[in-house]
Amino acid sequence: MRIEKLKEFIAEKELDGVLITYKPNLFYFTGSAPVLGGYLVVTPDEELFLVPQLEYEEAKESSRVPVEYFKKGADLYEKLKGFNLKKLGIEGRTSYSSVQNLREKIGAEEFTIVDDVIKELRMVKTPEEIEVIKQACRIADLAMETALEEVREGVKEREVAAKMEYVMKMNGAEKVAFDTIVASGWRSALPHGIASDKVIEKGDLVVIDEGALFNHYHSDMTRTVVVGLPNEKQKEIYEIVLEAQKEGIKAAKPGVTAKDVDTAARNVIAEYGYGDYFIHSTGHGVGLEIHEWPGVSQYDETVLKPGMVITVEPGIYIPKFGGVRIEDTIVITENGAERLTKTERELI
Amino acid sequence: MRIEKLKEFIAEKELDGVLITYKPNLFYFTGSAPVLGGYLVVTPDEELFLVPQLEYEEAKESSRVPVEYFKKGADLYEKLKGFNLKKLGIEGRTSYSSVQNLREKIGAEEFTIVDDVIKELRMVKTPEEIEVIKQACRIADLAMETALEEVREGVKEREVAAKMEYVMKMNGAEKVAFDTIVASGWRSALPHGIASDKVIEKGDLVVIDEGALFNHYHSDMTRTVVVGLPNEKQKEIYEIVLEAQKEGIKAAKPGVTAKDVDTAARNVIAEYGYGDYFIHSTGHGVGLEIHEWPGVSQYDETVLKPGMVITVEPGIYIPKFGGVRIEDTIVITENGAERLTKTERELI
Repeated sequence: MRIEKLKEFIAEKELDGVLITYKPNLFYFTGSAPVLGGYLVVTPDEELFLVPQLEYEEAKESSRVPVEYFKKGADLYEKLKGFNLKKLGIEGRTSYSSVQNLREKIGAEEFTIVDDVIKELRMVKTPEEIEVIKQACRIADLAMETALEEVREGVKEREVAAKMEYVMKMNGAEKVAFDTIVASGWRSALPHGIASDKVIEKGDLVVIDEGALFNHYHSDMTRTVVVGLPNEKQKEIYEIVLEAQKEGIKAAKPGVTAKDVDTAARNVIAEYGYGDYFIHSTGHGVGLEIHEWPGVSQYDETVLKPGMVITVEPGIYIPKFGGVRIEDTIVITENGAERLTKTERELI
Repeated sequence: MRIEKLKEFIAEKELDGVLITYKPNLFYFTGSAPVLGGYLVVTPDEELFLVPQLEYEEAKESSRVPVEYFKKGADLYEKLKGFNLKKLGIEGRTSYSSVQNLREKIGAEEFTIVDDVIKELRMVKTPEEIEVIKQACRIADLAMETALEEVREGVKEREVAAKMEYVMKMNGAEKVAFDTIVASGWRSALPHGIASDKVIEKGDLVVIDEGALFNHYHSDMTRTVVVGLPNEKQKEIYEIVLEAQKEGIKAAKPGVTAKDVDTAARNVIAEYGYGDYFIHSTGHGVGLEIHEWPGVSQYDETVLKPGMVITVEPGIYIPKFGGVRIEDTIVITENGAERLTKTERELI
């Protein structure tokens, strides 16, 4: 059980308890997602989820952990003080101000970062989590279908994104997983070309990178198309990126490292002489956050396990000319990987 | 000038410099908003904006401050170390992990929180900022117009939100200012009833709370309607909330405190005997963040000044029965306040 892992950490490090405040982690451990956040306290023999009074009724319904409410900061610190948390585990992202408050108001003295325990847990998804991510991916496929219909000469990037996001929402998405990218022409060479007022023109490469948030889980996929007939160079880089993406996915299986997946994709692009134009890592973990672990890069040697969900998204970006990126969300299976985003990739 | 205020703080506190990393603050001081963030260093006689390599081209175009890029964390800390920042001003929200890194990797020894300086600056908007917020409010009005057309028996809350968000985006919004609330029937008694799959029914109170993000600035407004003919109790609480909202706005002017505005609205509701059902503060500042300063509550005695932008949004929430909230974004003027969201309020 998830909270048991925190208790093992508490025992191992001889802590008085752990305090969790980051929303994705609160949802992971409690099953509840108060809009205003909350404070999960775990001690060697107890756990309690403290939420603002306004959130109490909803949290009580959804939380797997006992819930109490606080009225104001003073009230919160009074309750926390009752746990006598001198040696306290916290998330590394806890703010400097919060740590000061914990020192001054509840008498915490020594802080230990619990991030690695949470990462190890969250990185491997349960079958239930994978099922939800599959649904988020299905919605992304529907939005991409809309994009492929809407991208044409004379339309603004932002209009395409508006229609895609409408489709996501009508199909059950809570919201977009991240700002939808529709980057056309010279903008396609920007890896983060969020949909703008640029009008799409004939001959443009158009990079569409999008995902949905569904029941707290994210999806992420990218396709690239050309408006009208592609020229030779567009075709060439498209085919290289597609080969790289396929090689990356082929490399992804239990026992290899995230770095190996990056290498497999990167080598294809380098062999064709475009290595300098692949200016980001091959992918990243996806789950309660759009960017989580492992990083699929030269710097992450996490060994892949069944249940890990990552993206594979190589790209080539040629300033002023344009760019191509092809991305799927995949899950590591017992003997390989399965694509969860399924939109066709043979688009140019 | 904005950065001059940071330099005055540096001089006053005898710091070696200030390091800004929170995205709304980065945009405020540099005019640039790299997707992956960045690091603004200000010293007594210099300022430099460090961004990831991927963001360099765009940051260089938009930043008012000199820009350099870093390739990896190690590279970043090397550059920061060059500034010799032993006594360092940081934002209170800087993470515990970052502070550890600043200690270990750049030799920072003493930390001072700069939040108050930034708050004093950002709280009073320039005419240019108010112009942008007005545009964000205009988009919110258009989305509300759509909501008032779409809310009817048999439609899902989420479908109404999807149409509203489509209209926002088609009218130039970067995205929603926050998750759109469409809360009908018993859900209208939840102050945070984000649009769900609930089907809207005849006789439902429907609280619609929405806003747009435009050029980095937010808008925020709420209207409440009844599907079909309102009953006596629905009419009663609607009229009380509307009176409270008008009194709140009437009280808002230079020289009074944010608390006074809260009191003016709160008193109306209390006089009618519904004080216990108004379970949140009257409003909040709006700008680069959807919730900023001042808080319009009993706990914030900030004296209002021309250029401050706040919401006035009293509500009455009766569990199981339903709720009413009416909200506008307003700007404090020389002798009062002006409503920036303009949708009619006489809706029940």
